[in-house]
Amino acid sequence: MRKINIGLLGLGTVGSGVTSILQKNSFDINTRTGADIKVKRALVQDLAKTRDLSKDILLSDKVSDILDDPEIDIVVEAMGGIEPARTYIITALNNGKNVVTANKDLLAAHGQELFEVAQKNKRDLYYEASVAGGIPIIAALRQSLTANRISSLIGIINGTTNYILSDMTDKGRDYNEVLRESQELGYAEADPTSDIEGLDAARKLAILSTIAFNTRVTIDDVFSEGISKVSKEDIKYADELNCVIKLLAIAKNQEDGIEVRVHPALLPKNHPLATVNGVYNAIYVVGDAVGETMFYGKGAGSLPTGSAVVSDIIQIARNLESKSVGLSDCDSYRNYPIKSSDDFTTGYYIRVKVKDEPRVFASLALFFAEAGISFASIIQKPRSNEKAEIVLVTHPCKESQLKQAVASLNSYSKLDKIYNVIRMETNGF
Amino acid sequence: MRKINIGLLGLGTVGSGVTSILQKNSFDINTRTGADIKVKRALVQDLAKTRDLSKDILLSDKVSDILDDPEIDIVVEAMGGIEPARTYIITALNNGKNVVTANKDLLAAHGQELFEVAQKNKRDLYYEASVAGGIPIIAALRQSLTANRISSLIGIINGTTNYILSDMTDKGRDYNEVLRESQELGYAEADPTSDIEGLDAARKLAILSTIAFNTRVTIDDVFSEGISKVSKEDIKYADELNCVIKLLAIAKNQEDGIEVRVHPALLPKNHPLATVNGVYNAIYVVGDAVGETMFYGKGAGSLPTGSAVVSDIIQIARNLESKSVGLSDCDSYRNYPIKSSDDFTTGYYIRVKVKDEPRVFASLALFFAEAGISFASIIQKPRSNEKAEIVLVTHPCKESQLKQAVASLNSYSKLDKIYNVIRMETNGF
Repeated sequence: MRKINIGLLGLGTVGSGVTSILQKNSFDINTRTGADIKVKRALVQDLAKTRDLSKDILLSDKVSDILDDPEIDIVVEAMGGIEPARTYIITALNNGKNVVTANKDLLAAHGQELFEVAQKNKRDLYYEASVAGGIPIIAALRQSLTANRISSLIGIINGTTNYILSDMTDKGRDYNEVLRESQELGYAEADPTSDIEGLDAARKLAILSTIAFNTRVTIDDVFSEGISKVSKEDIKYADELNCVIKLLAIAKNQEDGIEVRVHPALLPKNHPLATVNGVYNAIYVVGDAVGETMFYGKGAGSLPTGSAVVSDIIQIARNLESKSVGLSDCDSYRNYPIKSSDDFTTGYYIRVKVKDEPRVFASLALFFAEAGISFASIIQKPRSNEKAEIVLVTHPCKESQLKQAVASLNSYSKLDKIYNVIRMETNGF
Repeated sequence: MRKINIGLLGLGTVGSGVTSILQKNSFDINTRTGADIKVKRALVQDLAKTRDLSKDILLSDKVSDILDDPEIDIVVEAMGGIEPARTYIITALNNGKNVVTANKDLLAAHGQELFEVAQKNKRDLYYEASVAGGIPIIAALRQSLTANRISSLIGIINGTTNYILSDMTDKGRDYNEVLRESQELGYAEADPTSDIEGLDAARKLAILSTIAFNTRVTIDDVFSEGISKVSKEDIKYADELNCVIKLLAIAKNQEDGIEVRVHPALLPKNHPLATVNGVYNAIYVVGDAVGETMFYGKGAGSLPTGSAVVSDIIQIARNLESKSVGLSDCDSYRNYPIKSSDDFTTGYYIRVKVKDEPRVFASLALFFAEAGISFASIIQKPRSNEKAEIVLVTHPCKESQLKQAVASLNSYSKLDKIYNVIRMETNGF
């Protein structure tokens, strides 16, 4: 049986998931590949740390022990961050090794460079674990849906924000209260910025849309807005409108270019994504032949992410067996323009507090009419102190139109407050 | 650019989907494969029939024009049925062609034989379209989830029965009324036996469980029961129990063997499969590393099934390019026993009409207690003529225990009628 040696960069959450799956399921994995796949050596920071690890796995704190070891066939990069991961992956590929990475930050920023190095060296660079570990969406887009032109892709691809929004929805709790509890439970990080501001989802969306549309999309192309402004009142109004509020990662391939955006949005309760709750992720994909599809699973965690890494290892092992490594099919042969946010077309939910006087509503209506926007729904509730709270839901319009209406609103003397403006995703379903 | 010629056996629903996708998306498909992929010739029954087809595609009513043409690289079998499809596929493989098939009937009965012929000839035999065309579940099980030991797989994989049950649920209508309408609308066939009796789902389940568990499962191994006994009253009671009724295809890998069964079942409304309605299919898969996943999409139709066939063609084209065809990884290296239905463990919903007299309920309770079965829920409603209608929901028990309790019930003098006994899928979630 051919021996395939893995060099593991990092033994944290992902790395330890990989070693434990390779050990536990070794019989099936070896039978399925016809190869004996083992982690030979792992790079760690602290050699002295006690670890629950098979004695067969050598440890080293020198990366050259892995990158320069001619016996190592596949390097698994499970460190995260841009550097030194980028340099290590490039060195590994240049040294003739195949690479599996779980690193979304790196791919969303430097994907093109890395794939070019892989191609130059005729080596595999696999990355299923970089987006939603428990969902094999990369393989689906690269292989199973290749007969299609993908028109849109909508994902719930950040577990932290989905957990927070689900909890606010289920229990009617405040954002800050739920965030604090999520941090205590370990579902949110001590510095949760990357998750709650939508940057983590934006990185994943850059990777997914690059594959789905065969055009290069980087993190800088993705518009992103976080969930910190979403209040329990907004969630209640959304419920009255038969919607839920989710942090959506949306990519659309349209005639005038590619639209890539991450933001909270009202989503109709009958949409397949509306029931994706807690730490679960899902990606809804529409192709011209296949129609609507959805892929659902855990977005993160040691074993789900490890499952993606090990399945990539198995695929590379099969490629090694058939002498077909290095056939990258992640080509960005299209070169679509990226749309400006002013040209995004969505519905909007706008919640305002105004003076409860005659003519006030007529004025509001006029501001939107002047911007060419019409309404899909209106909710008005009396508030104390001669104030009224009004929720306006628009039909889809361009963001530039919405900005015009909001500017008029802001200069209106009877306006007390704009609580929130949240997009609503209705068209295209 | 390398030319890859397709020979198409059949130009019905699936075949015409394949030709239209290959034409419409030729630029992307050719760029993704680096090959010029074209249907060279199609086998049809009636050469005189008018068809909306590219003039480049030759037609023939002699199968040898395809199977013996040395220019044809890939044969797509889109005829259905056992013979002559089986003979044609074997001849194609023996003649050195790769094969893509959408034929579940054939694979569920003769899969092993066909894979052996493919392996002997070192050719690819792909079959994504044979189960739930719009859902890339075969690739997921063969590649993306290979790091896992799959413990269970639950599918809604028959569109006709799901449409009927969804409509009965949404509109409170009768089974016969909905079936008749489905036939008029073309959602159910004139002879709907294969769908409504669960045979179609059983065939697909045989294919899926063979791949998921790496053990040979054929149609004869699958227990199946149809939906014709499910009434609108059962659906209403299920709703009271916070469940929906679905035709489920269930495969479990357990210590004492493989459990493969298709039957209607009560499913809790919070299960990811519970909201899969109408003609949509979904397959829920639990792996030891990945945890819970679900794959959702259209189960049938010209373009969704065509999407699966063309994606298989693209994969074979890539294999031809990298000289790696014929590396079948669909090995049944396990040889698990198939469990008898007596050993299936599920909950049960039992709806009976009894005399409304003292002690009757105590007797009912005793029959189940004597079989070692306890109750999860009980609903009792008064009926006219001194009769009572009782719904008993049991905790999970073996089918042999249930049979004992039902035998006691049947010989009970105060029993008026057993309306229905339906399984309930609660354990394992």
